[in-house]
Amino acid sequence: MSCNGNSNHEHPPLPEWNSLNYPELPPMPWFGLDIGGSLAKLVYFEPTDNTESEETEVETLKNIRKYLKNNRSYGDTGHRDVHLQMDSVLIGGRKGSLHFIRFPTSEMALFIELAKSKGMATLASTVCATGGGAYKFEKQFFKELHMRLHKFDELESLIRGIEFMEANSPTECYYLENPKSDTAEKICYDFSDPYPFMVVNIGSGVSILKVTAPGEFTRVSGTRCDCNYLADLGGGTFLGLCCLLTGCASFEEALELASQGDSTKVDKLVKDIYGGGYEKFNLDGNLVAASFGQMISTDRRAKVKREDLARATLVTITNNIASIARMCALNEKISRVVFLGNFLRSNMISQKLLSYGMEYWSKGALRALFLEHEGYFGCVGCLLELITQREDYILQENLKNNLLNGAATVNGTTPPPPTEVSGTPNPPEMRNGSS
Amino acid sequence: MSCNGNSNHEHPPLPEWNSLNYPELPPMPWFGLDIGGSLAKLVYFEPTDNTESEETEVETLKNIRKYLKNNRSYGDTGHRDVHLQMDSVLIGGRKGSLHFIRFPTSEMALFIELAKSKGMATLASTVCATGGGAYKFEKQFFKELHMRLHKFDELESLIRGIEFMEANSPTECYYLENPKSDTAEKICYDFSDPYPFMVVNIGSGVSILKVTAPGEFTRVSGTRCDCNYLADLGGGTFLGLCCLLTGCASFEEALELASQGDSTKVDKLVKDIYGGGYEKFNLDGNLVAASFGQMISTDRRAKVKREDLARATLVTITNNIASIARMCALNEKISRVVFLGNFLRSNMISQKLLSYGMEYWSKGALRALFLEHEGYFGCVGCLLELITQREDYILQENLKNNLLNGAATVNGTTPPPPTEVSGTPNPPEMRNGSS
Repeated sequence: MSCNGNSNHEHPPLPEWNSLNYPELPPMPWFGLDIGGSLAKLVYFEPTDNTESEETEVETLKNIRKYLKNNRSYGDTGHRDVHLQMDSVLIGGRKGSLHFIRFPTSEMALFIELAKSKGMATLASTVCATGGGAYKFEKQFFKELHMRLHKFDELESLIRGIEFMEANSPTECYYLENPKSDTAEKICYDFSDPYPFMVVNIGSGVSILKVTAPGEFTRVSGTRCDCNYLADLGGGTFLGLCCLLTGCASFEEALELASQGDSTKVDKLVKDIYGGGYEKFNLDGNLVAASFGQMISTDRRAKVKREDLARATLVTITNNIASIARMCALNEKISRVVFLGNFLRSNMISQKLLSYGMEYWSKGALRALFLEHEGYFGCVGCLLELITQREDYILQENLKNNLLNGAATVNGTTPPPPTEVSGTPNPPEMRNGSS
Repeated sequence: MSCNGNSNHEHPPLPEWNSLNYPELPPMPWFGLDIGGSLAKLVYFEPTDNTESEETEVETLKNIRKYLKNNRSYGDTGHRDVHLQMDSVLIGGRKGSLHFIRFPTSEMALFIELAKSKGMATLASTVCATGGGAYKFEKQFFKELHMRLHKFDELESLIRGIEFMEANSPTECYYLENPKSDTAEKICYDFSDPYPFMVVNIGSGVSILKVTAPGEFTRVSGTRCDCNYLADLGGGTFLGLCCLLTGCASFEEALELASQGDSTKVDKLVKDIYGGGYEKFNLDGNLVAASFGQMISTDRRAKVKREDLARATLVTITNNIASIARMCALNEKISRVVFLGNFLRSNMISQKLLSYGMEYWSKGALRALFLEHEGYFGCVGCLLELITQREDYILQENLKNNLLNGAATVNGTTPPPPTEVSGTPNPPEMRNGSS
């Protein structure tokens, strides 16, 4: 990736947590979990600044660390994205590495079993979790792993994750130069003064948000009033349709097929309808007039290849998202549109289409931006929430003590006695997404 | 259909053409033609006020009239929508009936052959035509039938057709009451003061227009700048996908399958992702989170029926159109949204979904309206254009003559000598859609 100049990251200062100020950080291991409709995303913080006392950490904790670090895949379907690993990250005053792991949500039972076999149930641990699966699997987590899922709002964790990652990874944000050419190139985008920007999160479905200031966001107007889902056509639709049409077995296979296909064998183009003469209207004959429109012909269906069908499915879903995103952005008068979510993972075809679609149809007024950690922002937001919740709790406890003692300082040197996050009484009610 | 009160049709007065004032109307037969991406739509005006001299009309003309009137289907695929026939209509000062015929655009060669076999080539005739096919098939029409296709802008003819039909058919416009219930009922809508309104034309693809006054319209903001197609996902996508997924052979079969299917076996719903607990967010568990999202599971694919797939395809395409239409309407601050196009033909499932989708998500601010002559407005607009072009031409010729003669009246009593519309010199350049 090329980087144009140095990104001058003048972010609002991150809270200076410090394990000395706040010795009562949650017990290790620290995870953040985002259980989506198709994919569960997990971030694991591995401390690298262990103190002497920590070196004598319980055996189970050591084993978990070793297991996660020494593998790239877990079971048949769990996968660690080693290329996304971030080292020397400061969280809660601790220095360490962030590891990014994903597995299909449908394999949650196996994941829980695996975690159990590694002794997770013996650790009094809490995980902040988001996504619909945080509700669906809450009881199983508690029953099998004695683990509390502290649920955190999906969109709040997403935005928090984006802001943290962008501040900690100077090459996080990029755009594509010459998106239509074979030589399309990733170019670093200086995201240091990003507000306002729009977020288009493409998971199983699609959510669209407007972010106006650090931590401040709204769902864009035009979204379905009470729910996160703007559009039902997202990554889940792509993969579901591709499986039906081509018999493929995975997202990776679907993308591989699509990379070798030709959607113009499937879609009805402007030139198919006009024959000629569309030049008079400044119409590009190669524009899609009706996705899958050629497939009403028996002859065409007989000739079509599964690669073409995969490509057409990918192009259709992507272009539809681009259209909706463009309408929202124009409507909200926002020029920077950040696309993320696991639909974009290793998916340069869609990134190019989105880049071209945003730029071309808006005559250059809109720019599509992408983030390296595609679908992991929600779980990072949860990891941060795990720390903040603890901090909030400590601040409140301090305040209470100080009021009792007649002192007014919040950042006292005598912190309250430790309380297990997962124990009783609970920390203050977790924020949830009932916004 | 129920009609609430009498519709008070105070339309702008229609031009009072009269065969006495304008004896030089185009020669019969009068057709209007709209050749779309999937379907060609034809409207035929049958005069019922024939004068004595017309009773001696050429044999060919009589035969064509008989053939069209005595049949409901033409060849294997042509079809006359008898239930839509309109009688006692005044056009160009002539009284008669409008007949509505459709056939697949892919069968255009057969249609031309049929018209030739009925002697159309011996009639010096002109047809105003719109749709991409007016370009694609122009040469064939001229070569085989000696027929000139005078091309008329697609959107202009659409709006003109809507305004004419609505003024001539008091029960043209309706909405659905209780769209989600089995007892959904068509209710007449008083469209006498309709401006502004939005038109969502669902053919192979989708176009969206804002109509602000009689004959005045703009493409809605957010459309692709230079082209009619807002969204590539329209009726062509539904049928193309349905053919691929179910092996069905026609739109009618696809709808029939869909009527017996269950899309919740195919789509991933909110409750599939959340398990439970979505009530906290005011989320309806039955909302679609990802269309086709269940089809990533091999087990689910093995169990799914083709009826379910047809239903899911129909629901997906319809909901996507509803989302886009809703965003446009909110953006343009328009509350009346008129859905039309052949995608809606005999398609109560989509009409219900659109009605519910518009009303529910806008909290009652938006209303979905429908028109009885679903996909025929473009060809009606063309038929009217055929007459108007002639009138424009006569007005111009009159003006020319009057200027030469020193007279100033336009509506002179001595009309210019007749000129064949299809002859040389041509009438003034037809307006086309290069807007």
